[in-house]
Amino acid sequence: MKWYIAALLTVLTSSQGILTTLSQSNGKYKYDYATVPFFAEVFKIMGNLKIVTTGILFRLFLKKKLSNLQWMAIILLAVGTTTSQVKGCGEASCDSLFSAPIQGYMLGILSACLSALAGVYTEFLMKQNNDSLYWQNVQLYTFGAIFNMARLVVDDFRAGFEKGPWWQRLFNVYSITTWMVVLTLGSTGLLVSWLMKYADNIVKVYSTSMAMLLTMVLAVFLFGFKPTLQLFLGIIICMMSLHMYFAPPSMFVGLPPTVISDPESLVIVSDDHKAES
Amino acid sequence: MKWYIAALLTVLTSSQGILTTLSQSNGKYKYDYATVPFFAEVFKIMGNLKIVTTGILFRLFLKKKLSNLQWMAIILLAVGTTTSQVKGCGEASCDSLFSAPIQGYMLGILSACLSALAGVYTEFLMKQNNDSLYWQNVQLYTFGAIFNMARLVVDDFRAGFEKGPWWQRLFNVYSITTWMVVLTLGSTGLLVSWLMKYADNIVKVYSTSMAMLLTMVLAVFLFGFKPTLQLFLGIIICMMSLHMYFAPPSMFVGLPPTVISDPESLVIVSDDHKAES
Repeated sequence: MKWYIAALLTVLTSSQGILTTLSQSNGKYKYDYATVPFFAEVFKIMGNLKIVTTGILFRLFLKKKLSNLQWMAIILLAVGTTTSQVKGCGEASCDSLFSAPIQGYMLGILSACLSALAGVYTEFLMKQNNDSLYWQNVQLYTFGAIFNMARLVVDDFRAGFEKGPWWQRLFNVYSITTWMVVLTLGSTGLLVSWLMKYADNIVKVYSTSMAMLLTMVLAVFLFGFKPTLQLFLGIIICMMSLHMYFAPPSMFVGLPPTVISDPESLVIVSDDHKAES
Repeated sequence: MKWYIAALLTVLTSSQGILTTLSQSNGKYKYDYATVPFFAEVFKIMGNLKIVTTGILFRLFLKKKLSNLQWMAIILLAVGTTTSQVKGCGEASCDSLFSAPIQGYMLGILSACLSALAGVYTEFLMKQNNDSLYWQNVQLYTFGAIFNMARLVVDDFRAGFEKGPWWQRLFNVYSITTWMVVLTLGSTGLLVSWLMKYADNIVKVYSTSMAMLLTMVLAVFLFGFKPTLQLFLGIIICMMSLHMYFAPPSMFVGLPPTVISDPESLVIVSDDHKAES
């Protein structure tokens, strides 16, 4: 029963979003996103495609078989998260999602594929050998650290070291919420690695989707957002999808209990699903 | 394979909506509905509850057993039709659905229960004996004819027969589209009776839901409505619900074919589902 790791990831990812919003409203830590609002909207909606592409690449490259019910659950999850993001009436931008140039959709699909590929490849790497999780993490994140450092050095050279080297002002405008963002990002990273090694990409996709919904619900209480009908519908759809994916198939079709091959098939670790299709 | 009756009902119900809109725009035949726009909106959304209450009363009074998957399909159908009706941004009235007085919701639930009860009772009556379908129709619709006639007579007495008796001006402002509305309403009535006798309430609920979606799609082409993301999502959800309800359970969980008890379980006549739960 390792479901609490997935639940923890859900809570952490959600708190990340809330902390980001908090620090944004403090005016100190600004997210460099959504500079092109319309395309950002199309991308946000098309980002849900990642759920489906993850399922497809998961099947193709990791050779995991999914039952028809599980495929339907994955599509439903994508539909559910999209539903919760449908723009309510009275919101600012009202452009139709279907009026973006065709390149926008192609890029959205490409982005969903690349993102899913990264996830599936990470899972492949983490499961490849029995090295310690933390050693694998060090190997994976070293590249990120190097590339980020390179960028900082280049920026310094471009500015002619006017403000001194980057390491002297790395933590300059950090507030407490910024530190909490760093803390949750770090913990999320560890949990994602854990999920990739001992569970699978689909579990991660469910965690992050649930986190999105949890964030929207918390935003209603914390930031006074108006609860929308589409959020409510999205939550129902995602819950049904969760149930369809992880509950043992005998639960749905009322088979005699002797057909159940594995009494522990509710455990979310991926290998338990192999027998189901 | 009596699926074409359900398909015909879908097309007829849909054309009914389109004809009504057409005759409304001709300014001759006005629907006496939606005089209180806000409550009409809450009622329209809560009308989808009828799908779920029909399932519950169907189970309670007609003693039909449904598998868990079929229950989930019924809830998904209600969620799907509701999703397609979510107000897009830019629409006129923007009141939150969650801000109606509590009586509104109670009445909505009561209305859903009564409507479902009427459907389930009709099914009970139609299946009670082996009388001809047309004789049963005559019995059922006679009451409607009597009550409507009574209303017309009362109206005449109230107006003091100023315009003469009602039967002299019954068809006064009928245009061709009005006649077509009458024709489709009549055919729909016959088909619904057929479904109630030889299929069941759930099949009817699916037919009318599909009709609603078909109408919305046709409205995009015929009346130039803007296609919305929520309509697209609603269609996907309802299609998955349809598949979950009517496809044989072995299709979902990848069981060996020997487990399939009835190769014809795709037939939509209700008795075929008894074995599934």
